[in-house]
Amino acid sequence: MTRIHDDPERFAATALDGFCRLHPRHVQRVAGGAVRAAETRSAKVALVIGGGSGHYPAFLGYVGPGLGDAAVCGDVFASPSTQGIARIGRLADRGMGVVFGFGNYAGDVLNFGAAAERLRGEGIDARILAVVDDLASAGPDERRKRRGVAGDVAVFKIAGAAAETGADIDEVLRLAERANERTVSLGVAFAGCTLPGAKEPLFTVPKGQMGVGLGIHGEPGVSEEPAASASDLAALLVDKLLAERPDGWNGRAAAILNGLGATKYEELFVLWTHVADQLAEAGVTLVEPEAGELVTSLDMAGCSLTLTFLDDELEPLWLAPCDAAAMRRGATIETSPAAPVRDEAEAARAFPAASEASREGAARILAHLGAIAAMLREKEHELGQLDALAGDGDHGQGMRRGATAALEAAERAAGAGAGARSLLEEAADAWADRAGGTSGAIWGLLLRGWAAKLSDEAEPGDADVAAGAREARDRVMRLGRAQVGDKTLVDALVPFVETLARGIEAGEPLAAAWRRAADAATQAAEATAPMTPRLGRARPLAARSIGHPDAGAVSLALCASVVADRLERQRTD
Amino acid sequence: MTRIHDDPERFAATALDGFCRLHPRHVQRVAGGAVRAAETRSAKVALVIGGGSGHYPAFLGYVGPGLGDAAVCGDVFASPSTQGIARIGRLADRGMGVVFGFGNYAGDVLNFGAAAERLRGEGIDARILAVVDDLASAGPDERRKRRGVAGDVAVFKIAGAAAETGADIDEVLRLAERANERTVSLGVAFAGCTLPGAKEPLFTVPKGQMGVGLGIHGEPGVSEEPAASASDLAALLVDKLLAERPDGWNGRAAAILNGLGATKYEELFVLWTHVADQLAEAGVTLVEPEAGELVTSLDMAGCSLTLTFLDDELEPLWLAPCDAAAMRRGATIETSPAAPVRDEAEAARAFPAASEASREGAARILAHLGAIAAMLREKEHELGQLDALAGDGDHGQGMRRGATAALEAAERAAGAGAGARSLLEEAADAWADRAGGTSGAIWGLLLRGWAAKLSDEAEPGDADVAAGAREARDRVMRLGRAQVGDKTLVDALVPFVETLARGIEAGEPLAAAWRRAADAATQAAEATAPMTPRLGRARPLAARSIGHPDAGAVSLALCASVVADRLERQRTD
Repeated sequence: MTRIHDDPERFAATALDGFCRLHPRHVQRVAGGAVRAAETRSAKVALVIGGGSGHYPAFLGYVGPGLGDAAVCGDVFASPSTQGIARIGRLADRGMGVVFGFGNYAGDVLNFGAAAERLRGEGIDARILAVVDDLASAGPDERRKRRGVAGDVAVFKIAGAAAETGADIDEVLRLAERANERTVSLGVAFAGCTLPGAKEPLFTVPKGQMGVGLGIHGEPGVSEEPAASASDLAALLVDKLLAERPDGWNGRAAAILNGLGATKYEELFVLWTHVADQLAEAGVTLVEPEAGELVTSLDMAGCSLTLTFLDDELEPLWLAPCDAAAMRRGATIETSPAAPVRDEAEAARAFPAASEASREGAARILAHLGAIAAMLREKEHELGQLDALAGDGDHGQGMRRGATAALEAAERAAGAGAGARSLLEEAADAWADRAGGTSGAIWGLLLRGWAAKLSDEAEPGDADVAAGAREARDRVMRLGRAQVGDKTLVDALVPFVETLARGIEAGEPLAAAWRRAADAATQAAEATAPMTPRLGRARPLAARSIGHPDAGAVSLALCASVVADRLERQRTD
Repeated sequence: MTRIHDDPERFAATALDGFCRLHPRHVQRVAGGAVRAAETRSAKVALVIGGGSGHYPAFLGYVGPGLGDAAVCGDVFASPSTQGIARIGRLADRGMGVVFGFGNYAGDVLNFGAAAERLRGEGIDARILAVVDDLASAGPDERRKRRGVAGDVAVFKIAGAAAETGADIDEVLRLAERANERTVSLGVAFAGCTLPGAKEPLFTVPKGQMGVGLGIHGEPGVSEEPAASASDLAALLVDKLLAERPDGWNGRAAAILNGLGATKYEELFVLWTHVADQLAEAGVTLVEPEAGELVTSLDMAGCSLTLTFLDDELEPLWLAPCDAAAMRRGATIETSPAAPVRDEAEAARAFPAASEASREGAARILAHLGAIAAMLREKEHELGQLDALAGDGDHGQGMRRGATAALEAAERAAGAGAGARSLLEEAADAWADRAGGTSGAIWGLLLRGWAAKLSDEAEPGDADVAAGAREARDRVMRLGRAQVGDKTLVDALVPFVETLARGIEAGEPLAAAWRRAADAATQAAEATAPMTPRLGRARPLAARSIGHPDAGAVSLALCASVVADRLERQRTD
């Protein structure tokens, strides 16, 4: 909902003030709107765009060289007045006439139409350009009845570029109307927006549904359907738009994937991958496509796809430079192509030659990793719930992912004949890479530290295991910047390492020392208090008040115990 | 909430694909991130920025000449892995070293730190730059513990500009850390965001409250307070930030007013008017401030204000050209200053000399307008409720505003000696200008049409009243494109005009003819069926099913009746 305002009745006018104060390089404020602050030529047709407020970047964001000459801003979702439009039309006119561009809505048609009539009565050649791109609002046989949505941007861009060439008003309007004829949009809405000062949204969409073709002010759509996956949504939009491709079209299109306000950038980028694939499959060549928030509806959730079926006249105008607050074409810095990157991300690693003894050690490590991965798959949900009390609940998932990736990498390494050190390094990197986040990185450090005390030649002895444990602890504490008592995995790691290393150094058998170390880790993990106060603060009250063991310490103790079990079984076998 | 995705686990990676396919001029895709597609120089320090996904334009939107050399993208709200960071650092290095820029979060510190260590081990001079601008996350005495939020943008912009000069890595890091030292942010959150695939928001803020200092992942804030007005919110943010102004500061600041996702542009512009005023009062000179969505948190509702306390070293770097997908500095088109606009919006109108008789007619019209305005103030709520069943419920408000403005304008005109025609024209324009929207425009047309048949010389006779009514009807129907039966004010206007004009032309006294006309209008208004199906579709079911008179027709009938009452009183007086 719209939360930041003073007097809701002043919302649109105040927003206009704020925008003009932020963008003096682009606009100068006038009553009811803004005009360009900079010119490219003294005489040209003026493109004056506008409509209700609440749609930024429409319309103020599109005033500038190569685009609009002025914008007229009504109240939120309300047409500007005839007087306001006429006044700004007069200010924008530079002797070659004024084209008023707006979306095709009753109030705008009325007010821009009356303003144009009034200017013509004063001897200014004023014309109207009502954008009609929303195919959900009327059939192809009634194109002129369609609403204007994000297609505004494509039509205004082309009209602005045409005006910038110095063409006369008939030519500018001809090109703009050609773009208008060849521009189609379709949108879906997931949730309505709330007007400033209003308590309820302007309209609602049932949970889990999407309104197909729902307008940017909640105007009716064509149907209500279950919310679709990104690929199905792309198919819905692409198919409906391509159904209107004109005869003899050259297959090149401008595209605008528009977010309405609360449907965010990454969602649009995800959707774009499918839109682009499906358009490519249909043989469409995209020209400078745009994806982002270009015509919003306050905080409405939803998006729309617009296609402009280009031709040899329209394409250069779509590509022409422009410099408005919300749309720029052309480079601001001179550059040369970058050096081509050689991304060895996927390159398989060759392992140093390893001794038979070290490869046997590697096989034992591989078996331990298998037991750890199996245990973590089983405990994923439990660890997630534990973490959710303090953090964002992804610890179980991260540990499962990391351990599984480590096991797979270790298997590949073993298959390639890697020694103990190389195998454990591979496992460490794979764990960190797939688990992501903090715990993934910690486990990567931990296993890499341990590997540093092993070799690919000698058989890993108990002393190496002890030294590796100490090295792992040191690296985790240094880079993790955590001490015992910080309620992290370190709380369990330190007693584990101390017990294990001291036991081994005292000549205790590995299995026995490891068991005592695992028990010490388990005790410590159970003793860890709740999440740090800072982390706790934003969580549900339940999690703030009562204590819980730290998930990271618990999972370390669990891993230690699983390995202890295996070592004991080996000894008793 | 986040609705558009396929497999939630693939969300971040797919979003990265989509972005790279949309911006080939800016980036080339590599595993786990993107590197620049264009260069300005063959040797320079590489600025590699990154962190979790879900924050666009951070970080991909800031890769380009004058800004970042590459971005590393983790999963949503999760640090990228050490391996991924190290790999992209290697790709970005051009022999002068790599600065890793990121917000100060445990996972990022760990992974970027480990990656830098690994690169140094390989002979690449890699350094880390952890942005610490969020003053809510730690006190001034613990600046280094603070989180990084929208201050990332200011620090990265300055670091990127420094690297672009060809400076060595020590100098780039010195300037970047100086910007980091002098950058502070504070944010508020109104509502949490929802991770892809999640059913519940990551955190919640009680309705009507705002979390002050709440982090972009829901990290704890400093307090929870009732949501403030725009001016109070500005005061809260400005005061807290200025409290950290450094000694000896020259008073010049970069500012970033950042929307977190669902707090939209116009709200930020409204807030900006107060932020700018309050900073000006405090003697701060703003340098190229930015307001918009620069570091988001999916669809989180909230905003933050960032100040960078500039100096002679930092200011030119903040202003230096850059050309990234989400931030550009420098012009793309050559321009000259626009002609200064002469906005006569407020200029008082001089009226043509009017006859005594016409001024008497004007006085009668003024009295009618007074009665209409009084009635509409009284009926505002009722008309609003009626309209809400079919439209957006603003009809009562629009009519009240319009009639009140018309009355005030008519009073001014009468005071200036305007005749009947000029006074009614003034009232018409004022009505349309203040009421806004469709009904305002219609009433402007209606009254202007009526005025066209009056004069400032002759006394307005009954025949003129009839002719004016016909002219008003014609203009409304032509520009309003409405016919009888379209469920608009025309349904009541036409029988009103027909009855009135025919009665007068048949020699009936004005008062009697007007009364019958008003009754005809009332009958017609009551007969108007529900809103058109199209308008109905997106409204609550109740409104779709049952019928209601059209609010526009009803208000016309009410106005006609009020005037009828006055005419009858005059006659009986």
